[in-house]
Amino acid sequence: MYKKVERFAVLGAGNGGQALAAYLSLNGYTVNLYNRSPERIEPVKKAGGIHLSGVFKGFGKLNEVTSDIKKAVKGVEIIMVATPAVAHKYLARELSPFLEDGQIILLNPGRTGGALEFYNTLQNNGCQADVIISEAQTFLYASRVIGPARAKIYGVKNRVAIAAFPSTRTREVIDCLHPVFPQFSPVENVLKTSLDNIGAIFHPAPTLLNMARIESGGEFEYYQEGITPSVAKILEAMDKERMEVATALGVEPTSAQDWLILSYGVKGRNLYELLQDNKQYQGIGAPSRIDHRYVLEDVPMSLVPIASLGDLLGVDTPTIDIVINLANIVYETNFWETGRTAASLGLNGLTPDQIQRLVNQGTIEDFRVAFEVNQSLYRKADSLIFNTYKRDGEVEAWND
Amino acid sequence: MYKKVERFAVLGAGNGGQALAAYLSLNGYTVNLYNRSPERIEPVKKAGGIHLSGVFKGFGKLNEVTSDIKKAVKGVEIIMVATPAVAHKYLARELSPFLEDGQIILLNPGRTGGALEFYNTLQNNGCQADVIISEAQTFLYASRVIGPARAKIYGVKNRVAIAAFPSTRTREVIDCLHPVFPQFSPVENVLKTSLDNIGAIFHPAPTLLNMARIESGGEFEYYQEGITPSVAKILEAMDKERMEVATALGVEPTSAQDWLILSYGVKGRNLYELLQDNKQYQGIGAPSRIDHRYVLEDVPMSLVPIASLGDLLGVDTPTIDIVINLANIVYETNFWETGRTAASLGLNGLTPDQIQRLVNQGTIEDFRVAFEVNQSLYRKADSLIFNTYKRDGEVEAWND
Repeated sequence: MYKKVERFAVLGAGNGGQALAAYLSLNGYTVNLYNRSPERIEPVKKAGGIHLSGVFKGFGKLNEVTSDIKKAVKGVEIIMVATPAVAHKYLARELSPFLEDGQIILLNPGRTGGALEFYNTLQNNGCQADVIISEAQTFLYASRVIGPARAKIYGVKNRVAIAAFPSTRTREVIDCLHPVFPQFSPVENVLKTSLDNIGAIFHPAPTLLNMARIESGGEFEYYQEGITPSVAKILEAMDKERMEVATALGVEPTSAQDWLILSYGVKGRNLYELLQDNKQYQGIGAPSRIDHRYVLEDVPMSLVPIASLGDLLGVDTPTIDIVINLANIVYETNFWETGRTAASLGLNGLTPDQIQRLVNQGTIEDFRVAFEVNQSLYRKADSLIFNTYKRDGEVEAWND
Repeated sequence: MYKKVERFAVLGAGNGGQALAAYLSLNGYTVNLYNRSPERIEPVKKAGGIHLSGVFKGFGKLNEVTSDIKKAVKGVEIIMVATPAVAHKYLARELSPFLEDGQIILLNPGRTGGALEFYNTLQNNGCQADVIISEAQTFLYASRVIGPARAKIYGVKNRVAIAAFPSTRTREVIDCLHPVFPQFSPVENVLKTSLDNIGAIFHPAPTLLNMARIESGGEFEYYQEGITPSVAKILEAMDKERMEVATALGVEPTSAQDWLILSYGVKGRNLYELLQDNKQYQGIGAPSRIDHRYVLEDVPMSLVPIASLGDLLGVDTPTIDIVINLANIVYETNFWETGRTAASLGLNGLTPDQIQRLVNQGTIEDFRVAFEVNQSLYRKADSLIFNTYKRDGEVEAWND
């Protein structure tokens, strides 16, 4: 049963946020667009909306274009977060006084541990509102801002995995979003979305292993010239470690190779060949500078939490550690400290079983006991919903 | 007092060996050139020598051009080893039955631990000959094979540090080599030549951090486009670790920055600027393939022994370890096992003081005791020779 929602806030007016806001408006929703720095949204404010081109076309009129987060989220049903993950904690802090019961927050995407970090930050800031925090495994669109108040959607993924924290509330998110985003497909829990973070594999290492080429101004195709056989070997080693961490957490991971095959229908005997075979990656240029979210976001928000979870669970992640440590030297920082960790995600000291219970039920206690202890967390608890979630199936399975 | 020598063997007929052999012949010496694979020296054998061009010019007639190592070294006074360091152990094994009392072996260069490895290999193979094993810190020439039986010397270094194992015999090496190679300048001991191995810093990391660029066929200047500010930061971190290991061993190390300033007279505030300022590095292209001695030689023969010595001495080498571990993944090997280690250099379990005594005197015992125990090692022992060695002075100081 889908729930009719009417009002969205989109937080972040970058390549993703502007496309999302325009698309939602074109589909009849009332949309508020927020951006921390007012400069970025000045042209949108002036135009009163965004000209969308590409897969979807038209002028998406916006209700509010603002740098006032309170104004942005007041009265909306859905809050779509479309900022880099490094901003999630800041946003959670800023939002905590203004959130309203029943609001749904979706991180697009959460990278690794986004929903858990968001939840913990709201708790630590005394947020009392009964909101649902959810995260997507990747961003829905390939989109770019192509001019003042102009965005273009180059492609839309067929399926994007999402999960809420706790999983008992994932269905509510799907119920609200399905009419406008039928691509969102529920998976077991936020461990699955967080550990299937393929950006952790495809973003930082190829950027770092091409640092000299980027810094000396060479232009090259990111996936098809930047990920050569040797770079692909490094990525495969990292991917194996990511999957080992996921498995230790009780998550059945999707390998980067399988993800490419499932997402793009490509063929090949190894990661290198699969990437070479992917026509949709053709023309994607490398970053033009080394200070890029591929490292600045994905090292602290993707690799560090995976390595830290590995540490918690006794799973070595030597190749992932190499990439983090290389980044620490190049960026003269300590991503181990600035990044998400098992501790900052509230998972320190927990066993894999306890973590599974936490993400599925919202508490580490045994389900039935916890249900009595804190019934408010389980308003929608339904042991059957997991069976109706088809992990690899099409979202059309929900059209009943 | 210089000793007149007449006969040289040059082992290895690559870019270095062919230039050395031709130069020696042009200076009136009898020269045998050895190469393991006969194919490589076939053109030289046919021509009866090597046409040398560049800094030195002429046809260097050779006495023997052979793949028979016994023939190559029979009756020579000096054996110049000009192979990649990965061949040193093989050569020591092959040479051990044929070495003669009084022969001097110079590794050009030894990389890290070359002389110690050579000595231990001869010992383990029962070699009884009283030979002197010495190592150079770098190769004397910038030279290339430019055609069949044709070599070119592009440049000659002003000064190349050398040391014998033990140091008590360094003077004998200098005495024999000075007339023909006045650039060779003695330093305290083989720890100094081995730890001042700048190739350890300049070779593997820039190659690995440009792996995608090399594999996708991009041509670029190795030093000036391959070592960008970010790559230079990694090299500086490695260099700091190398110097810490050296210091823990009682060696006063030369930083890569100081080495550039001393060797090339360049100016700059950091490693990146010094490299950019070095006109002599202009035009040096990057390797055209990833299977290159910059990694295949310098990871196992330079970085692994430095890291292993660090391990022995309690000095962490995290950045050097990163580079070794990246190479392990890319080359699908374990350089920690194939490389030189404190154990394979015969240094395991020794304190820095014992290691110093070993390299200076040939035994870990206190000098005077050892002198009585094993007098043969100290035929030339002279506590004064260290004072006459001017570390940073010109070799002309020896012209007395």
